[in-house]
Amino acid sequence: MTSIAELVNGAFSGSVRAMAKLITLVENEMPGAVEALQQLYPRTGRAYIVGITGPPGSGKSTLTDKITKELRKKGSTVGIIAVDPTSPFSGGALLGDRLRMQDITNDEGVFVRSMATRGTLGGLSRATADTVKILDAFGKDFILIETVGVGQDEVDIVKTADTTLLISVPGLGDEIQALKAGIMEIGDIFVVNKSDREGADRVVTELRLMLDLNPARGSWRTPIVKTVATLGEGIADLAEKIWEHRRFLQGGSGLLRKRNERAKEEILNLIEGEVSKYIHKMLKYDVTFDEVIEQVVARKKDPYSYAQKVTEPFAKYYQIYVDQPKN
Amino acid sequence: MTSIAELVNGAFSGSVRAMAKLITLVENEMPGAVEALQQLYPRTGRAYIVGITGPPGSGKSTLTDKITKELRKKGSTVGIIAVDPTSPFSGGALLGDRLRMQDITNDEGVFVRSMATRGTLGGLSRATADTVKILDAFGKDFILIETVGVGQDEVDIVKTADTTLLISVPGLGDEIQALKAGIMEIGDIFVVNKSDREGADRVVTELRLMLDLNPARGSWRTPIVKTVATLGEGIADLAEKIWEHRRFLQGGSGLLRKRNERAKEEILNLIEGEVSKYIHKMLKYDVTFDEVIEQVVARKKDPYSYAQKVTEPFAKYYQIYVDQPKN
Repeated sequence: MTSIAELVNGAFSGSVRAMAKLITLVENEMPGAVEALQQLYPRTGRAYIVGITGPPGSGKSTLTDKITKELRKKGSTVGIIAVDPTSPFSGGALLGDRLRMQDITNDEGVFVRSMATRGTLGGLSRATADTVKILDAFGKDFILIETVGVGQDEVDIVKTADTTLLISVPGLGDEIQALKAGIMEIGDIFVVNKSDREGADRVVTELRLMLDLNPARGSWRTPIVKTVATLGEGIADLAEKIWEHRRFLQGGSGLLRKRNERAKEEILNLIEGEVSKYIHKMLKYDVTFDEVIEQVVARKKDPYSYAQKVTEPFAKYYQIYVDQPKN
Repeated sequence: MTSIAELVNGAFSGSVRAMAKLITLVENEMPGAVEALQQLYPRTGRAYIVGITGPPGSGKSTLTDKITKELRKKGSTVGIIAVDPTSPFSGGALLGDRLRMQDITNDEGVFVRSMATRGTLGGLSRATADTVKILDAFGKDFILIETVGVGQDEVDIVKTADTTLLISVPGLGDEIQALKAGIMEIGDIFVVNKSDREGADRVVTELRLMLDLNPARGSWRTPIVKTVATLGEGIADLAEKIWEHRRFLQGGSGLLRKRNERAKEEILNLIEGEVSKYIHKMLKYDVTFDEVIEQVVARKKDPYSYAQKVTEPFAKYYQIYVDQPKN
């Protein structure tokens, strides 16, 4: 039986096995996971995090693959986290993508991990954030978070990256291209992949128009990069834009602001996860809870009043907290 | 300004406008929402709830449309909730679907509402559950919950229905057909839509095989119904299977068990939502929180220890709760 400290030290001394074990520990919220993260935490904060998101069929995995190779050429090590929120209808896609990336998975400077955990509240974003930290502490220079699905959860996850790539593709139909309000803002770099297809220039024009109509983007002028990931076209240009955005963020307060925002979200997520665990335990041991459920189903009690009653102590605690003097 | 009581009474006396207003109130968690739900709650529990889910392109909306017409023919009133978890890449699909259903939206016995709210924790499932209750109290005989996306969130929502239809379709490729572990269990009726396409019989055979290999399904023998929703083929048969499943559940303890499970999930969801609100407020008023974030970003503090510290009072409360004598 390996101790947590041994695992952590093993990961620090370069054992990929130890690192993979740590991720599994953390992903499954096993005993010792928090202890391990507490030990790792001081060594994190050095990696640069890139989020990659876009609709299905936009070639996100191939792009991730090619960006990885480009970063490797420049001597950077890369960790890849492929986020798949247990989409119930799928299966083969993720595996297929990973097989395509065989040449990069044979490269010791690259570590690939898919994340599909859900489990408890906020489980996926927590597992992703924790895995980022392990790869970061382990010394990966770049961490790419690639989403497999397209749900709000994954968007929330990638938008916590330092630089986020938003992938479009010609010919997916208007209903796919129509980016809903709120999604434009998360893209620091727009990529039109499969740009050898008909309609690529139209997509670029439309994106440019949307960006220009949405000026609340600070001083960063969001670039639109055309790529054909399968042929490697435009990848060097895209990698250059990532570096450019990184220099832009580091030049001002942008990076710190992004990282503060990320820390805040993460802390909230951790607190909610903890509290949720207490609630589940509390109701598990509450022998009267089954009775309450029966009364609710029989319409003798309403669930709203019951929820208010159970959370009263929390409300009281919150009130005390707000009232107490701060310094 | 209309009072909550007036809105509730308006809805009871048949005002569609009042009902729509109530839904908006509840969806946006506006003041008075909980009060309205408390007033409505005793009049709920009569509607029969059908969940409809499946991969994109399987024709869920057309099926929902045709099932609605079939139920209307037999004199039942119908409420439809189309759940779209703010999928960031989409837009036109939902509207297109709704336009297609024009003839049913002109029918006064049918009420259609789409749900795309997220907002706070568990926001989507809470909004859906609350809307179900409003339509239920309003006297709709059937409530159809149709998912637009395919995420875990929506599956969690539809599986709380009394009867859940799981839609498949030929020719979507193996990676789509491969239903992940956990998804088979939620289907009470399997539908192979677009069954005039090549490969429909193979899909039926595969589903039957999967069902037979998965015998932990109680005494209900999950039927597989072939439909061509656009032509109305198989819809009468499908409606019959829904009635059959309803009779099956009502004949045993199945319906009560499902409804107990649903009430339990809902109560947990409500409690977590309440507590989450307190945490957000607490940290909003905590002037030291910004400092904590900075220290976390500077790696002087780790977020895990901080989250544990903040949740200590909750832990203490939980401990008291578990220790106190029950009767």
